[in-house]
Amino acid sequence: MAEEGRRILVAVDEGEESMHALSWCLKNLVFQNSKDTLILLYVKSPRVVYSAFDGTGYLFSSEVTAAMESYVLRVADSVLEKAKKLCNNVEKVETRIENGDPREVICDMAQKLGADVLVMGSHGYGLIKRTFLGSVSNHCAQTVKCPVLIVKKPKSTAGNV
Amino acid sequence: MAEEGRRILVAVDEGEESMHALSWCLKNLVFQNSKDTLILLYVKSPRVVYSAFDGTGYLFSSEVTAAMESYVLRVADSVLEKAKKLCNNVEKVETRIENGDPREVICDMAQKLGADVLVMGSHGYGLIKRTFLGSVSNHCAQTVKCPVLIVKKPKSTAGNV
Repeated sequence: MAEEGRRILVAVDEGEESMHALSWCLKNLVFQNSKDTLILLYVKSPRVVYSAFDGTGYLFSSEVTAAMESYVLRVADSVLEKAKKLCNNVEKVETRIENGDPREVICDMAQKLGADVLVMGSHGYGLIKRTFLGSVSNHCAQTVKCPVLIVKKPKSTAGNV
Repeated sequence: MAEEGRRILVAVDEGEESMHALSWCLKNLVFQNSKDTLILLYVKSPRVVYSAFDGTGYLFSSEVTAAMESYVLRVADSVLEKAKKLCNNVEKVETRIENGDPREVICDMAQKLGADVLVMGSHGYGLIKRTFLGSVSNHCAQTVKCPVLIVKKPKSTAGNV
């Protein structure tokens, strides 16, 4: 029943749930000794992060904006590094950092990268963004053409990724 | 990476999409030579079928009701037979026919049967019921605690299950 060489797209973010989704995928979807390619996607949405901090009505200086962009990129790198460590048994792992609304970007990338399946957590995309964007997984499940696997983090294992 | 002995719940209905979801699951989720148990669930929702036919305001006679119930059961059997044929390489296959609102029943059964993953198509649950109930998969993806895999039927293979 094994099928080889699939492109498995996993959307990861700062939340523990997406790491749990990745772990579940590695245990349950990636076949042993397969030629599957795992693509780890992190979407950074600077616009939303800025608006979350900017309650004053003043525009940020370019210095502040640059510092924030640098911070967001460091978070992205850190999340992808953590995710890659979980995939140490998978031969082909690719990472992508993209900009934009996670709902749109994840759907676009699933299409562009020719994903055979999209894997994601059920909650929003990062703590701040979730409030603004609503459920990313709901939107993707409705929009993406390939199969979508939504993995929730069980309450009993809270804290253990 | 293989994990054995999982309980994979697949919700099937009259639509081709659920058969496609089952096929995808068999190819991509069920491990070769695994101890996975595949549970095929068909939910019949007589109440909704009746209301679809009964636009007159008259109550059905018990004869008509019995005939309809018998018909619905035959459809259920036929769907499960078709589904079972697809699973001829899987050692452990169970079938269940349940009554009620598919959204509620599927979520309840995922919990009661201790499913490790729920697999379903993205559309409603049967042609008539879909209009009344809205998206079953959306509801289940939000409610069910275990991972949910939603598989859409690609347009290019329309007609081929």
